Amino acid sequence: MDNLHDLAARLKKLEDELAIRNLAARFTDAVNERNVDAFRELWTDDAVWEIGPPLQVSAQGIDAIANMMTRLLEPKSLFIQLTHSGVVTFTDEDTAIARFTERERGKGEHDYYENLAIYRDELVRQANGWRFKRRFYEYRYLDTSRFTGAAIPLDPHVHEGVGN
Amino acid sequence: MDNLHDLAARLKKLEDELAIRNLAARFTDAVNERNVDAFRELWTDDAVWEIGPPLQVSAQGIDAIANMMTRLLEPKSLFIQLTHSGVVTFTDEDTAIARFTERERGKGEHDYYENLAIYRDELVRQANGWRFKRRFYEYRYLDTSRFTGAAIPLDPHVHEGVGN
Amino acid sequence: MDNLHDLAARLKKLEDELAIRNLAARFTDAVNERNVDAFRELWTDDAVWEIGPPLQVSAQGIDAIANMMTRLLEPKSLFIQLTHSGVVTFTDEDTAIARFTERERGKGEHDYYENLAIYRDELVRQANGWRFKRRFYEYRYLDTSRFTGAAIPLDPHVHEGVGN
Repeated sequence: MDNLHDLAARLKKLEDELAIRNLAARFTDAVNERNVDAFRELWTDDAVWEIGPPLQVSAQGIDAIANMMTRLLEPKSLFIQLTHSGVVTFTDEDTAIARFTERERGKGEHDYYENLAIYRDELVRQANGWRFKRRFYEYRYLDTSRFTGAAIPLDPHVHEGVGN
Repeated sequence: MDNLHDLAARLKKLEDELAIRNLAARFTDAVNERNVDAFRELWTDDAVWEIGPPLQVSAQGIDAIANMMTRLLEPKSLFIQLTHSGVVTFTDEDTAIARFTERERGKGEHDYYENLAIYRDELVRQANGWRFKRRFYEYRYLDTSRFTGAAIPLDPHVHEGVGN
Repeated sequence: MDNLHDLAARLKKLEDELAIRNLAARFTDAVNERNVDAFRELWTDDAVWEIGPPLQVSAQGIDAIANMMTRLLEPKSLFIQLTHSGVVTFTDEDTAIARFTERERGKGEHDYYENLAIYRDELVRQANGWRFKRRFYEYRYLDTSRFTGAAIPLDPHVHEGVGN
């Protein structure tokens, strides 16, 4: 019943789905760790990253995308993105679309930011793996009211001896 | 050491687990996209969908379940469900139970809704794939106090040219 | 092109990644279900569980870890942990590091607790599967202000007839 060729095709399907889920997870990790180099590796060369209304901003191409990430994060003492479950649909062998449910909380010197949103994604398989061709952040809820609580400054001593 | 039959069995186990995780993700996506047709595809014909205390409501059968979804969502200008990690346990070849950690935020004309909960699920494999036989939403925390922030109305122009 | 040995290696990689993601999911499930026995099974014998500043506490060894879990949860009428997306990196065949984005909300008799954090993990493969060798909870945001809303007491009647 099983043959090697069929098994290989089924395995590839799982690998592709997990690679795309990992791409979204790596995006969130790069943002939360403020790792611009890791962030650059997630996109096709001509990718578009777009934040939708009411806080529109967008960038095309990896350099512009990396600059946008830095520009958005730099003024924030707190910025955490939370990526929840998502659905992935393959549109052909080497392309897919996906939607992930998102929440973010951020705080700058005088501004507050809490939201719920959907990332609407277009993905493409390159020789080096799956990449975002387009991410569109569709706000569903936005709150810029003051919130209580505080960002926790990182303690460099804590990271000593941590392999991670 | 490896043989084709063993590999096929191991692969099937991963496929089954991912199919069940995807079913929970598709539930959340259908709710957040307000896609009743997609929502209908998640259930066995005689499935039970039950919201627990203190806001009990339940439905049995796909039509009743779809009506319940519409009735719950229609009055809300905002409703987003967030599905977090979950655990899946196979009870035999074609049945499983699962628990997923959930959070929801909703807002109607005069009502507010924020909660933490556990979805306690029973699943069954059908010829057309894994389906929910029962979902029970167990509230752990409920807040119906007014919150700040606003739902963002969707801008149809934004979706032009978006393949997703 | 495909051979059995290569397929087995690719399959093992997916199994390992999913096993580690499941370990983090089982941690959250054990905490949310307050299941100490399930919690004990997640660690190596000499594991370290460490909560970082500003609420430092740590334990080494399974008994100390289980006691710490009980001590932290017991006074809380509400405690829910939300585990979001994560990234897993294999450092060699039998070891890995991971980071998961977390949020928790808890409430004791007179205290409130809401946070955002990163779990920084070290993992090791044992004969009985992947285990945490170290978990470090790095707070990024902490709010101990009073919040509205209430914990929902579990209704034992609800669980009657629920296979889960």
